[in-house]
Amino acid sequence: MLEPSPVSCDPEAGGRPVEEVDWLLYNADWVVTCDSEMTAIAKGAVAIGSDRLVAVGATEDLKPRYRGRRSLDLAGHLIMPGLVNTHTHAAMSCFRGIGDDLPLDRWLNEVVFPAERSVVAPEMVYWGTQLSCVEMLGNGVTTFCDGYFFEESAARAVRDSGMRAVLGQGILDYPTPDHAEPATARSRAESFLASFPEGDGRIRPSLFCHAPYTCGPDTLRWVKDLCRELGILFQVHLSETEWEVRTIEEVYGRRPVLHLDALGLLDQGTLAAHAVWVNGEEARLLAERKVGVSHNVASNMKLASGVAPLPALLEAGVTVGLGTDGCASNNGLDLFREMDLTAKLHKVTRLDPMVCPAGTVLKLATAAGAATLGWEGEIGSLETGKKADLIALDINQPHLVPMYDPVSHLVYAARGSDVRYAWVNGRLLLERGNFTGVDAARAVAEVNRVALKAMKS
Amino acid sequence: MLEPSPVSCDPEAGGRPVEEVDWLLYNADWVVTCDSEMTAIAKGAVAIGSDRLVAVGATEDLKPRYRGRRSLDLAGHLIMPGLVNTHTHAAMSCFRGIGDDLPLDRWLNEVVFPAERSVVAPEMVYWGTQLSCVEMLGNGVTTFCDGYFFEESAARAVRDSGMRAVLGQGILDYPTPDHAEPATARSRAESFLASFPEGDGRIRPSLFCHAPYTCGPDTLRWVKDLCRELGILFQVHLSETEWEVRTIEEVYGRRPVLHLDALGLLDQGTLAAHAVWVNGEEARLLAERKVGVSHNVASNMKLASGVAPLPALLEAGVTVGLGTDGCASNNGLDLFREMDLTAKLHKVTRLDPMVCPAGTVLKLATAAGAATLGWEGEIGSLETGKKADLIALDINQPHLVPMYDPVSHLVYAARGSDVRYAWVNGRLLLERGNFTGVDAARAVAEVNRVALKAMKS
Repeated sequence: MLEPSPVSCDPEAGGRPVEEVDWLLYNADWVVTCDSEMTAIAKGAVAIGSDRLVAVGATEDLKPRYRGRRSLDLAGHLIMPGLVNTHTHAAMSCFRGIGDDLPLDRWLNEVVFPAERSVVAPEMVYWGTQLSCVEMLGNGVTTFCDGYFFEESAARAVRDSGMRAVLGQGILDYPTPDHAEPATARSRAESFLASFPEGDGRIRPSLFCHAPYTCGPDTLRWVKDLCRELGILFQVHLSETEWEVRTIEEVYGRRPVLHLDALGLLDQGTLAAHAVWVNGEEARLLAERKVGVSHNVASNMKLASGVAPLPALLEAGVTVGLGTDGCASNNGLDLFREMDLTAKLHKVTRLDPMVCPAGTVLKLATAAGAATLGWEGEIGSLETGKKADLIALDINQPHLVPMYDPVSHLVYAARGSDVRYAWVNGRLLLERGNFTGVDAARAVAEVNRVALKAMKS
Repeated sequence: MLEPSPVSCDPEAGGRPVEEVDWLLYNADWVVTCDSEMTAIAKGAVAIGSDRLVAVGATEDLKPRYRGRRSLDLAGHLIMPGLVNTHTHAAMSCFRGIGDDLPLDRWLNEVVFPAERSVVAPEMVYWGTQLSCVEMLGNGVTTFCDGYFFEESAARAVRDSGMRAVLGQGILDYPTPDHAEPATARSRAESFLASFPEGDGRIRPSLFCHAPYTCGPDTLRWVKDLCRELGILFQVHLSETEWEVRTIEEVYGRRPVLHLDALGLLDQGTLAAHAVWVNGEEARLLAERKVGVSHNVASNMKLASGVAPLPALLEAGVTVGLGTDGCASNNGLDLFREMDLTAKLHKVTRLDPMVCPAGTVLKLATAAGAATLGWEGEIGSLETGKKADLIALDINQPHLVPMYDPVSHLVYAARGSDVRYAWVNGRLLLERGNFTGVDAARAVAEVNRVALKAMKS
C-alpha cells in the first residue's frame, strides 16, 4: 500500500491541490515508458512516492500537481525503466576475460574450473557480486537474475548495493565449491533458503539447476518441487549447445526441452537460459507451458554456441528476456550492448532488416524480461503504482545526435556509459554517474586481489 | 625529418644525456603497441617529439632519458595507437537512425534519398563531418577514410578538427547533390582535387566510385586512371549485397570482383568496402592484387546485407581493416563496438570460438586498417619514428576489472567511452574526455538544425 501523501494548496498552481512526493523528475527530453504501447512522452516527468511511481506524464501536467521533496531538472536526459538482466553469474566478474578465444572444453577444464576451485569462496562471491552490481547499475540495469554458489554471499552483496535481484543457489550432481558431496545438495539448498534475508522485497530467492547434463532427473525433480512449494523461480541452462542436445538425446532419448517437459518441469515458474538449439515443436511447447526464456546473445556468439531462434520463439509466443551471462563469457554486463547485438544478429542471420525491430528488442530488455522473472506486476515499465526502478541517460552527446526516434536510439546508438542516474525501489543509487551507496573502489580492489590469486592457480 | 632535439645532462639521470621532448607519457599500466608482435609493455611510456614518436618502452627506461615539455602520469590508463576507421560517410551523422528497421529499398527511396535531396549542401557536410570527427575522436578513432559529396567541406571540417583522414569525393552515373548532371562528374572530381587544401599531410584526397551498379565501366576506368596518375586511393563499395552480385552478373556476365578485375581496377591503390558476397576465387584474387578491404560488420548486420567471409579473406592473405560505414546504417562511429562485433559474429557463424581471436581483430582496427589506406608506414602502431597518433583509455573502471589480458580486454570489454586522451600528429585533441580543439556543442546544435529540416522533407 502507498502511504497517503501530504496534500497542500499551492497558490501558484491556481489553487489546485498539490501533492508532496519524494522525487519530482521533470523536463526530461523523453520519458520512454516501455508500457504495452511503448509510449514515449516528450518533455516528460515522473513523480516518485516512497518506493513507487506516483505519476508518469508530461512535465506541464505533473509539475503543477506535485511538489518534490527532491526535484531534478532532467533537460538533456531520457528517462526509462531500469533494465532487467535475466541471466548472469555475478560473482564471475572475478574471471572477466580469463582464457578468451579458447575452445569450450579447454576454456572450462584448463581455465575456468581450476580458477574456480582455487578462489570461489563466500568472500569472493561477495566482492565479485558487488563489483557486478556496480557495473550493472552504471549501465542502467536495476534488476538481475543470478545463479552461482555461496549465494547467501551474493544476497548480502545485493542487499548492500540497493539493487533488485532474483538469486539462485546453484545445484549440480557434481562436487561444487559449496557442496563437495553432491548428496548434500538438498541440505545446501535448504540452508540457503532458510538463511535468506528478510527485507523490503527487493531480493527473491531461487534455485538454479545447472543443466540437464549436470543434473539428473531426480535432482531436477526435487529442486522443481521445492521451488513450486515455495513459489520461487526455478532456473536452468537449457539447450545451449548442439553437444548438449546430442548428449541428452543419447542418454534420455529426447531433446532437452522435451526431456524437461517429460519430467514435469516446464511451467511459468521456470526460467530457461539460452534456448539456442530449440526447434519449432520445442518453441511451441515453451510458449504453451509459459516458460520464460533468457536470450544471451553475446555469450552465445563469443562461445560459438549458436544463434538462438529468437524470431521463431517470439512468433510462437514465448516470453523472452535478455541476459548477459557471466563476465567470463561476454565479457561485460551491459544490456545496451546486448540490445544492439540482438537487433543486429537476427537481421543478418535471417537476411531480413525488419526482424527484431528496436521496439521489440527494448521490450525484451525491460517489460518482457521482468515477466520472465514473474515480476511484471511491479517492474519493467514506468506506470503509476509500479516500483520506482528507473534510469536517466544523458542524451546530449555527439553519438546520440540527432534523435529521430528515441526507441531506436536506445537500441542502436545508446551505450551503458550514457546512464547518469538510477533509482531502485525509489532510492537514488547512481547520481551524475557516481555510486551513492556502494564503495566501488573497494569492490575494484577486492576483485583485483581475487584475480591475482586466480592467475596463480 | 625530425627536428634535432635539445640535449642536456641531467645530474639525476646519473650524468647521462637527457633529451627534451614535447610530451612524455609515463606510468601507463599498459602500452599496447599493435606492432607486428602485438607487443604489450607493462608500466609503459611514450615520448613524442613534434608530430612523431621518439620512443616507446618501459617507464623505467624512458623516464631517465627524456624530459617532457609536457608530461603526463597515466597510471590507471592503457596507451595504444589511435584506431583507423577505414570506411564511413561522416556527414551522414545528420541522418543517424533515420528510418531504422525498414527494408533496404524503402529505407533508401522513402527516407534517405528524400532527406539527402532536401538537406545535403556544403554547410551540412561541414557540420555533419565535424560532429563525426568529435564522435570518432571521443571513441579513440584518429584516422578515417571517408566518401561523400561536397567533400571539400568535409576537408575543411577535418582540417579544423585536427584529425587524420583520406577524403573521397563521391562519383555516380546518377544525379547527386553536388553534380546534378552525371556528365559533369569528371569536372566535379577535378575541381575537388584542385581545391584540396595544402597542409601538414594529415589529409589525403581520394575518389570514391559509389559501386559497380551505379558507375558504369567508363566511369570506373577514368576515375581509377586519375587515381593512379595522382597516386591517390580509389574507393568503391563492392559486393555488399546478394542483389548486387546478381545484378552485375546479369549485366556484365561476371561477379562484381571479377568485373572490376576485368576493367583493370584491382591493385594496392584500391579500397573495397564491404566485400560480403565474395567467394573463394574472389578472395584469392583480392589477395593477389593486394586490394584493401574494409569490413563493415555492424552495417552489414543492421541492413541484413550478409556475413562477410572475414576468416576466409584473412586466410587468403587479404589486407582487411574495420569500418563503421555511415551513421544512417549503424548507428554510431565506435570501432570498439566494431571490434567486439567482428570477434563475436564470425565465431558464431562458424560455430568455432577460436575464429577471429582478439589479437587478430585489434590488428584490423589499427595496423591492418592503416595498410588498407596505404598509410602503414606512418600510422597504425606505436613504433619509434611513426606519427604520434595515439589514445589513452581509463582502465580503472568496474567493467574493465580484473584485466587478465589487455589485448583481449580491448576487444571484448573496452568501450569507446573509456577513451580519455587522443593525440593526432603529436597534438592533444582529447584531454580527460574534453575536446581541446573543436566546439563540440556547436557541432551538436548545427546537426540538430539540419535534422529538423530533414524531418520536414
